[in-house]
Amino acid sequence: MTAIREFAITVRRASTKCAKVGHSSVSVARSLRKLSPTAFKTLRRVIAKVEHLDILGQKIRLNEREQESNKVIMAVKKEEISKGILDPSQFTPGQHIFKTLTEIRKSQIFNLIKRMPKGGVLHAHDTALCSTEYLISLTYRENLWICTANEGCDASALRFSKQKPQALNDCDWSLLSEVRAKYGSKRVDEYLAERLTLYPTTKFEDNNAAWSTFMNIFALLDGLVMYAPVWADYYYTALKEFYEDGVLYLEFRSLVPTLYDLNGTEFTAMDTVRIYVETLEKFKEDHPDFIGSRMIYAPIRNTNTEGLTSYINTLKEIKEKYPDFVAGFDLVGQEELGRPLRDFIDELLTIPEDIDFYFHAGETNWFGSSVDENLIDAILLGTKRIGHGFGLVKHPVVLDMLKKLNVAIEVSPISNQVLQLVTDFRNHPCSHFIADGYPVVISSDDPSFWKATPLSHDFYIAFLGIASQHSDLRLLKKLALNSIQYSSLSAEAQFDALEKWQAKWDQFIADVNENESNRGSPSQHLD
Amino acid sequence: MTAIREFAITVRRASTKCAKVGHSSVSVARSLRKLSPTAFKTLRRVIAKVEHLDILGQKIRLNEREQESNKVIMAVKKEEISKGILDPSQFTPGQHIFKTLTEIRKSQIFNLIKRMPKGGVLHAHDTALCSTEYLISLTYRENLWICTANEGCDASALRFSKQKPQALNDCDWSLLSEVRAKYGSKRVDEYLAERLTLYPTTKFEDNNAAWSTFMNIFALLDGLVMYAPVWADYYYTALKEFYEDGVLYLEFRSLVPTLYDLNGTEFTAMDTVRIYVETLEKFKEDHPDFIGSRMIYAPIRNTNTEGLTSYINTLKEIKEKYPDFVAGFDLVGQEELGRPLRDFIDELLTIPEDIDFYFHAGETNWFGSSVDENLIDAILLGTKRIGHGFGLVKHPVVLDMLKKLNVAIEVSPISNQVLQLVTDFRNHPCSHFIADGYPVVISSDDPSFWKATPLSHDFYIAFLGIASQHSDLRLLKKLALNSIQYSSLSAEAQFDALEKWQAKWDQFIADVNENESNRGSPSQHLD
Repeated sequence: MTAIREFAITVRRASTKCAKVGHSSVSVARSLRKLSPTAFKTLRRVIAKVEHLDILGQKIRLNEREQESNKVIMAVKKEEISKGILDPSQFTPGQHIFKTLTEIRKSQIFNLIKRMPKGGVLHAHDTALCSTEYLISLTYRENLWICTANEGCDASALRFSKQKPQALNDCDWSLLSEVRAKYGSKRVDEYLAERLTLYPTTKFEDNNAAWSTFMNIFALLDGLVMYAPVWADYYYTALKEFYEDGVLYLEFRSLVPTLYDLNGTEFTAMDTVRIYVETLEKFKEDHPDFIGSRMIYAPIRNTNTEGLTSYINTLKEIKEKYPDFVAGFDLVGQEELGRPLRDFIDELLTIPEDIDFYFHAGETNWFGSSVDENLIDAILLGTKRIGHGFGLVKHPVVLDMLKKLNVAIEVSPISNQVLQLVTDFRNHPCSHFIADGYPVVISSDDPSFWKATPLSHDFYIAFLGIASQHSDLRLLKKLALNSIQYSSLSAEAQFDALEKWQAKWDQFIADVNENESNRGSPSQHLD
Repeated sequence: MTAIREFAITVRRASTKCAKVGHSSVSVARSLRKLSPTAFKTLRRVIAKVEHLDILGQKIRLNEREQESNKVIMAVKKEEISKGILDPSQFTPGQHIFKTLTEIRKSQIFNLIKRMPKGGVLHAHDTALCSTEYLISLTYRENLWICTANEGCDASALRFSKQKPQALNDCDWSLLSEVRAKYGSKRVDEYLAERLTLYPTTKFEDNNAAWSTFMNIFALLDGLVMYAPVWADYYYTALKEFYEDGVLYLEFRSLVPTLYDLNGTEFTAMDTVRIYVETLEKFKEDHPDFIGSRMIYAPIRNTNTEGLTSYINTLKEIKEKYPDFVAGFDLVGQEELGRPLRDFIDELLTIPEDIDFYFHAGETNWFGSSVDENLIDAILLGTKRIGHGFGLVKHPVVLDMLKKLNVAIEVSPISNQVLQLVTDFRNHPCSHFIADGYPVVISSDDPSFWKATPLSHDFYIAFLGIASQHSDLRLLKKLALNSIQYSSLSAEAQFDALEKWQAKWDQFIADVNENESNRGSPSQHLD
């Protein structure tokens, strides 16, 4: 009768525990029933208040001008939520982003968020940043070849070259300009636009299938963006597109690939970083109110010990040469198919302490798998932030540690949906992080691949679909501040960054209030 | 420069906090990097162990025989998970139950769970319990009329009557036997089987649409099951089907409707309960190893103050007459369309303290809505369990209170999927409850409407799709024990219940081990 004994022990423990705090759970419950309705309602208000105070951003105090803007923002938020409750099928965060992307652009909240200075993007991959329009424009450059199979129907690689590039398996090279001449630019552009995004598939058979398509885009892009002249331009354009979307700082992951050009120049990883640094300097000269950009070296996790050792050598080399530009280290690629962090502990612990970790971890729904437990290794390795952390709700101990250690969670809602981890954003685990005041930053991961704006779409989803209906401008401001506070910037650089952001924020608040008073003025004149 | 000041305060607070515990977060992180790989791995094991200990059921100690069975169970679980990781599209908990129901029946884990004594079902609605086959058999009884529109294509009501029943809007009455004669029994049965379940729609436009179809099933069933002779038989059959699925106790919600018969007898709510009590007695005589069944009176929440007052009168009356059978009170129906608990505080607080609450709360994905905040009212009203609690991860304060007050969460995974709250079970918030050791009971809500077994399908989903891969027989045993511990049964009755359950459990463990050793024996003979 083991179970009966266990059961008796449980009951005894429970009553001892209750006795310690001076009451049984039943008596607490019942004692509430003795309250007058007025007393109950007071208690209810207190508890609701305590709950609200835990919500991310609720402790921020808004000044009078901000309070005015907040009214405008909350009025439109309330309207979108009320419409959604009446007809949930029209509520955009309940649906797939591919169906709602354009609809969202019409939303008033979206347009407010778009104009808002949102701080920085701390989780994005360097070859998945730019708009499809820009990518297509790149394919009009001279000397670009495309490798196709199935009589031109299936493209698998792009490459700039004076002559026909080296033969590849399973496809034939043609000059893209000739392909355009043959099939018409419109058709070719449409084809490329589809191949360079995950559209139109909203429901892959599973997340492995989504990842496979996803990795194919990177493969197709490689020859296009790793062409040295394009590499610089792509980065400059990314910074520009992000800047225009209200992003003042970009901390991106890079594989730091080896570039090429038409002359057969032998490039090294160092050249790749040098081009980044030079381009950034140019961009900052052109945009003095921009905060900056830093790189996390993040090679593919599907490697072995030798591979990792070679990564570490590259890391040390680029960090030594560009200490201000290189923020830290990470490993990327589908976690399930790569190796878990625990396989590389020995090597990772040899990395010098001035290089911080920003590990991807828990981008999975397999609870208890070794991949899922990357979360434990990431936190124990002293990661400064967690990339994705989708599985964190399954790891209360890690959650507790990351709150105490002040480790931020980089949440990229749209990426999680497109890669099949969540369907309805209202069910995204980030609701829990926001509700319990965890340090969250909102990022966009690979906006290029889903035709989203650099950050506004993800902010919109977080604000309208993931956060509480009560979350207001304070959450938005907190998310912007977090993106500076949890960036890799030094404390001093963060204050400078904040100054730049604050100037734009004040302008934004003034604009919202001015627009509102203009909107209000005709009727005021009528009074 | 408000934000800069706020920011400075935040930074100062963070450093003060860190200083208090004697270190900064950075130094903790970095100090880990100074560990030797061996020391790191020890620490890693300790943290993983601490995490595992928090998981529901992990503290249970299995005896030797149970450990033997556990090996069998974990071998098949591991196999199903490994297959799933290789090809997630074949992993049943990642898909809609309507697509996998039959496939699941072939699973080895499912068949082990099916045979397992699972304790009690604590959340189910009394007219949504029986198999479709049984419902169809009921429609063959004499004097049953069906009201159809669109030339017989659309049924909206059923009723037993000697003559044609009173006319309804929008449909015409025919004798079902005549309809069968006209269209053929097979077609009619197939039609009814579809109308009495939510099949085949896996994706309703939104959860309002799912609820609307769902409520229509109840409406169609009303005239069939509220016929007094059927009422008794339906309940008896439900108990029998649950018993055969390894359920020894059933605590169900009932609207306590007024019944009717062919003679125009005037029934009251008291008669409805009397028939239940008499039927239960009969069932217990026929099945002396069955634990029992109790009723939670749970009328429709879409009402007003007068309605609630009338409910309370009925409640008091039935509780007085049948104190042992009536467990408590709840309100049911789609939370969004009904009234929130806070509207009825004054009335609810008048309910005598010997009547416990078992409130539905948080069966929604609208974070911060008044419906979502039913969770706060439920816990403050002293609810003994929370029905669904799907939104609990958005309410850390409520979660904290319910753990301290030992209030159980009644999780019905399949119901949540069918009613469009979750798509992939691996993303069900119950993962968090299990990971953090909250008191969870697994229930089936309305298994009739999705053709599921009375409890085994939900248990299977919880075990394979929601719990950790590490969760084993200890979780299954804990869930069974919880269903007794958190039932409304008195402490004494719980010990009796446990004795009945333990006998079956020991038999189950013996069977699993015997089967395994039989399976193993041929090859042993060959050695």
